[in-house]
Amino acid sequence: MTYIKTPVKGMRDFLPKEMELREYVLNVMKETYENFGFELIGTPTVEHIENLSNNQGGENEKLIFKILKRGEKLENANLADLTTLVDSGLRYDLTVPLARMYANNMQNLNYPFRAFQIGYSYRAERPQKGRYRELMQCDLDILGEKTNLAEIEMIIAVVTFLKKLDFKEFKIKINDRRILKAMVDYAEIPSAMIDEVLISLDKFDKIGKEGVEQELKENGLKETSINKYLTKAMENKTDLKTFCQNLPIDQSVVQNLEEIIENVNENVNATIVFDPTLVRGMGYYTGPIFEIMADNFPSAIGGGGRYDEMIAKFSNKEVPACGFSIGFERLILLLEERAYQIAQPKEKICYLLKKETSAEEKAKVINIANKMRQQNKIVKIVVKSKNYKYQKETLTNDNYQIIEEW
Amino acid sequence: MTYIKTPVKGMRDFLPKEMELREYVLNVMKETYENFGFELIGTPTVEHIENLSNNQGGENEKLIFKILKRGEKLENANLADLTTLVDSGLRYDLTVPLARMYANNMQNLNYPFRAFQIGYSYRAERPQKGRYRELMQCDLDILGEKTNLAEIEMIIAVVTFLKKLDFKEFKIKINDRRILKAMVDYAEIPSAMIDEVLISLDKFDKIGKEGVEQELKENGLKETSINKYLTKAMENKTDLKTFCQNLPIDQSVVQNLEEIIENVNENVNATIVFDPTLVRGMGYYTGPIFEIMADNFPSAIGGGGRYDEMIAKFSNKEVPACGFSIGFERLILLLEERAYQIAQPKEKICYLLKKETSAEEKAKVINIANKMRQQNKIVKIVVKSKNYKYQKETLTNDNYQIIEEW
Repeated sequence: MTYIKTPVKGMRDFLPKEMELREYVLNVMKETYENFGFELIGTPTVEHIENLSNNQGGENEKLIFKILKRGEKLENANLADLTTLVDSGLRYDLTVPLARMYANNMQNLNYPFRAFQIGYSYRAERPQKGRYRELMQCDLDILGEKTNLAEIEMIIAVVTFLKKLDFKEFKIKINDRRILKAMVDYAEIPSAMIDEVLISLDKFDKIGKEGVEQELKENGLKETSINKYLTKAMENKTDLKTFCQNLPIDQSVVQNLEEIIENVNENVNATIVFDPTLVRGMGYYTGPIFEIMADNFPSAIGGGGRYDEMIAKFSNKEVPACGFSIGFERLILLLEERAYQIAQPKEKICYLLKKETSAEEKAKVINIANKMRQQNKIVKIVVKSKNYKYQKETLTNDNYQIIEEW
Repeated sequence: MTYIKTPVKGMRDFLPKEMELREYVLNVMKETYENFGFELIGTPTVEHIENLSNNQGGENEKLIFKILKRGEKLENANLADLTTLVDSGLRYDLTVPLARMYANNMQNLNYPFRAFQIGYSYRAERPQKGRYRELMQCDLDILGEKTNLAEIEMIIAVVTFLKKLDFKEFKIKINDRRILKAMVDYAEIPSAMIDEVLISLDKFDKIGKEGVEQELKENGLKETSINKYLTKAMENKTDLKTFCQNLPIDQSVVQNLEEIIENVNENVNATIVFDPTLVRGMGYYTGPIFEIMADNFPSAIGGGGRYDEMIAKFSNKEVPACGFSIGFERLILLLEERAYQIAQPKEKICYLLKKETSAEEKAKVINIANKMRQQNKIVKIVVKSKNYKYQKETLTNDNYQIIEEW
């Protein structure tokens, strides 16, 4: 019997100090989102393999933790085809389970439905700093709201939340999938190539203009199209209206995005900029997309967008949808880097008993301790150990007031 | 592409009302355990298959959700032996991950370590009412405390928690693994048979005295032993000292249990009774074991006991340990059955906009809404739908005050 005491690769145990910060942040988030009328929902960690496989691209599918069938179904599986061994997997994100859950419960939910969800997702990526195989995600979604009220309210909610964690300067990048599409049309790139083009453009921050250019060439795009496309993408980014003037696009799309920008500007102290190179990875977005950065940290804390076509895949009923996802693990990392301190408002008391304390005296202390706890104090009773000095030291570091008269 | 909109078998989506209750109960629990000096920890949902398989019996092992290896490791697996396909699984309980985590982090944790953990466990059982394949567990543990201070403090903490949820009458059954062992010795049953005997005795509530008798016969026990054993087990249950008089047992064991009973009695309003038929399923218990029932509900809300030998399996270092686990799903079921009501202290306001509301007016409402949210009110903005009457009705049922001047 070999027991292994480290956690499985890429996953983590959380010690009390780490949990304290995570819980604190989640509580601030819950309170904030609640005030915006969002309701907490829950979905299982395990999802049908059909739902996971259909929604991820080929590369992403490799990252799914797949669960073996059990009992007879496993015995009857075809060993020559590994896919028959599996009936489910760990969820990869919270959007797919939300869409599934909403499609299944629509008639019992408010319309529009303001939902938020907090839970772990799983990705079998090569572990590296800040990238985990079990990662907490916090999603905010409005289902059934086709106007930009959804985008506006969600962006304001997220900024309000982050402000409560002492972040000060916010930069929000915004774009629209339909503008990305219009840019492709404008550059006379065949529509069928849009996915490849966006995958390259999405790497702009990492590989620069030259890198994108190289990739587009490798994808067989005409040089004139590449030039036209990249020249457009490099234009002065913040002036949305001017940028869209020569694009084949409906003015209502531009107007819609303008309205989002104006409303966010009026309600929260944030720099909101139009960025035609913003892509956001997931293919399911259909309208505005956005990302939020704070206090000059180089990468985004969260992002999201409109995905009006996903619910219909589960229910055959079209339901407009818009979501915003917080990168919780990154957020925690940022807070830990700045040594963010949580106030512990409760008084902490530790009764340190001698080894020889009698049963009667112990009973007395237990009784006193319980009275204190009823006054909402944190109270523990500890028997003195051999290493008494170290014991006292750690208690003091933990802000316990030590009482040792027994 | 077939998408499935129901959750996977035996698992559940939680709608806002359900989540609200679950969250409320967890918050009450967190606050209570915190006041007893317990610290929240976290462990991954995914555990090494070695740790899961070693700790469960043959039957239980079938209930583990096993996770397929990935990439090269999967390609190199031997298809003739399904166990080589798997490297991990979903945790079956929270005790194994706690022991693993403690063994791995001992030097960074307080001693004794008062921990609590809240998280989902997974069991591929045949689904039935109140039994789920994804179930929340809430564990309370003290590691490093060899005296009965651990048992006493934990039982008081759990009763204190349940009281806050308006449970009134508590019954705590208590026994000790060493008394169970002494009963077997007393009846001249071979020591090697103890597991079989306890498995039968554990079914006493379900199959009665005759059922247990039958099973013991089938296990080949001598009739004189069976008679002696069952006559002993049926003795007046509450008088611990008298019960133990003719048993081959150290008086300190009896004294220890007496002290627990007295201390609990003095601190919480609960009926605590010695029950020599109480077994508790898990084989890892080594000392006192207990179960808590409330308000005449037929089954236990939680239970636990001392397991002094488990940590050493992970670390080769002996660390005394004692735990108490709440059956969270059962607790929620009980609260739902009694239509337990949570107070929502926040004011709720909904601005209901006309479809034709102008961008300027909408901006004004968004602005007002945000000011209200800063005053800790729950505020949402909703555009009137076609089914306006139904929309108003559901908002009113949700206790929203509706404002529709725009």
